[in-house]
Amino acid sequence: MRISELAERTGVSVATVKYYLREGLLPPGEATAATQARYSDEHVHRLQLIRVLREVGDVPVADLAEVLAAVGDRSLDLQSVLRTAHHALGPRRSEDSPESAATRAEIVRYLKDRRWEVDRRAPSIDRLATTLVYLRRLGWPVDASVFDRYADAADSIAREELATIDASRGRAAAVEQIVVGTVVFEQALVALRRLAEEHHSSLRFSRRSRRSG
Amino acid sequence: MRISELAERTGVSVATVKYYLREGLLPPGEATAATQARYSDEHVHRLQLIRVLREVGDVPVADLAEVLAAVGDRSLDLQSVLRTAHHALGPRRSEDSPESAATRAEIVRYLKDRRWEVDRRAPSIDRLATTLVYLRRLGWPVDASVFDRYADAADSIAREELATIDASRGRAAAVEQIVVGTVVFEQALVALRRLAEEHHSSLRFSRRSRRSG
Repeated sequence: MRISELAERTGVSVATVKYYLREGLLPPGEATAATQARYSDEHVHRLQLIRVLREVGDVPVADLAEVLAAVGDRSLDLQSVLRTAHHALGPRRSEDSPESAATRAEIVRYLKDRRWEVDRRAPSIDRLATTLVYLRRLGWPVDASVFDRYADAADSIAREELATIDASRGRAAAVEQIVVGTVVFEQALVALRRLAEEHHSSLRFSRRSRRSG
Repeated sequence: MRISELAERTGVSVATVKYYLREGLLPPGEATAATQARYSDEHVHRLQLIRVLREVGDVPVADLAEVLAAVGDRSLDLQSVLRTAHHALGPRRSEDSPESAATRAEIVRYLKDRRWEVDRRAPSIDRLATTLVYLRRLGWPVDASVFDRYADAADSIAREELATIDASRGRAAAVEQIVVGTVVFEQALVALRRLAEEHHSSLRFSRRSRRSG
C-alpha cells in the first residue's frame, strides 16, 4: 500500500508517518520509484504498536527508539526487554531530597524482604517512594506495610501474566505481549479498581435505592 | 502562622497559595491586620491534600473546586464523594467513534454481567473501552473476558479497601481516606505491578545469574 493508505488505515497522519520513517522508528517501505514506496501489513502493525506506546503508555518520542530497538533486538532476553519498556514508561527520576532518598531506601528494603528480584534503579521504586512521602505529608502514620495488600495482588497478577506468555510462539509475539501487556493492562487495572471501588462503596454507603443495572 | 511559613511548610509557593485563596480552594485565614492573616494546621493539611490531587492524581485545577466541595459538603454520602473524585480524575470523555461506542456498550454489558453497580457515565468505562480498542487494532483476538483476571483482583482490592474505611472516625477522615486512597494507592498499585512483573520475568526469563538482592 502507499503511504496515504498506511496513514488512513492506522489513523496516523502522513506527516507523522514520514517523521517516524526519518527517525527510523518505522522501517523503510519497498521503493517502487524515486519518491514512492510500498508499505506492508507489518508497517501497519508497527504503527499500531507505536500508537499504543505513545497514546496509552505516554512514552515520550525520545524514548520510543530505545523501546522499539529492544523489541527488535533478538539478542536481548525477555527480562531485558521488559526492563527497557518499564524504564521508558517512567516516571523520570527527579532529584533526591533527603526525605525521598530515605523513603526510597525504605522501599528497597521492603522489596528485599518480599524477595522480589528487581533492579534497584527501577523507576517504579521512585514512584512507590513518592506515594509514601505524600501519605506522610498528610499525617498518615504509615510505613511500607501499607502496600502489603497491593503487593500481594500485584504479585499474583504478575505471576499469572507471565505464565500466559508462550515463548514457543516465538520471540516477537512474546515481546509484544510483554510490552503491550504492561502498558495496556495497567490502564485496564486502574479503571477496574476505580469501578470496583464505586461498586463496593455503593454496597456500603449509598443512601439511594439499590439497582443492579 | 503567616502565609510565608504556610508556603514553606507545604512546599507550595506564596503566589500559588494566594491563587488558591482567591479561587476559594483554600479557606481564608484569620485576619490579623488589613493585609495580614494567620493560618492554621488545617490550612497546611488542605494544601497537602491539594498537592496530592494535583501532583499525584493529575486533577486539573479547574476540577479541584468540585472535588474539594464534595469533600466539604456534609450532605453528600460517601458514594457521591467517591464518584465526584473519580469523575475529576478522568479521563475526559472524547468524541465517540462508532467503534468506541460499540466497545463501550460491550464494557457496560461486561460490568452488568459481573453485577457491578456503577454509573454508566463513569470515565473508567471509557478508559476500559479504549484499552480494548487498542488491543484489537494490534490484531489481538480478545473480548472483554480478557479483563477477568484484573477485574477479580480489583474486586478483592476494592472490597478490602472499603472495609477499612471506618465511618465511626467521622465523615472528614472517611472522605479523605476515600479520595486520597483512590489517587495515591492507584500509583502504588501500578508501581507494584510493574515491579512484580520484573520479578516474575526474572524468575522465568533471565539468562543472568540470579541474585536475591
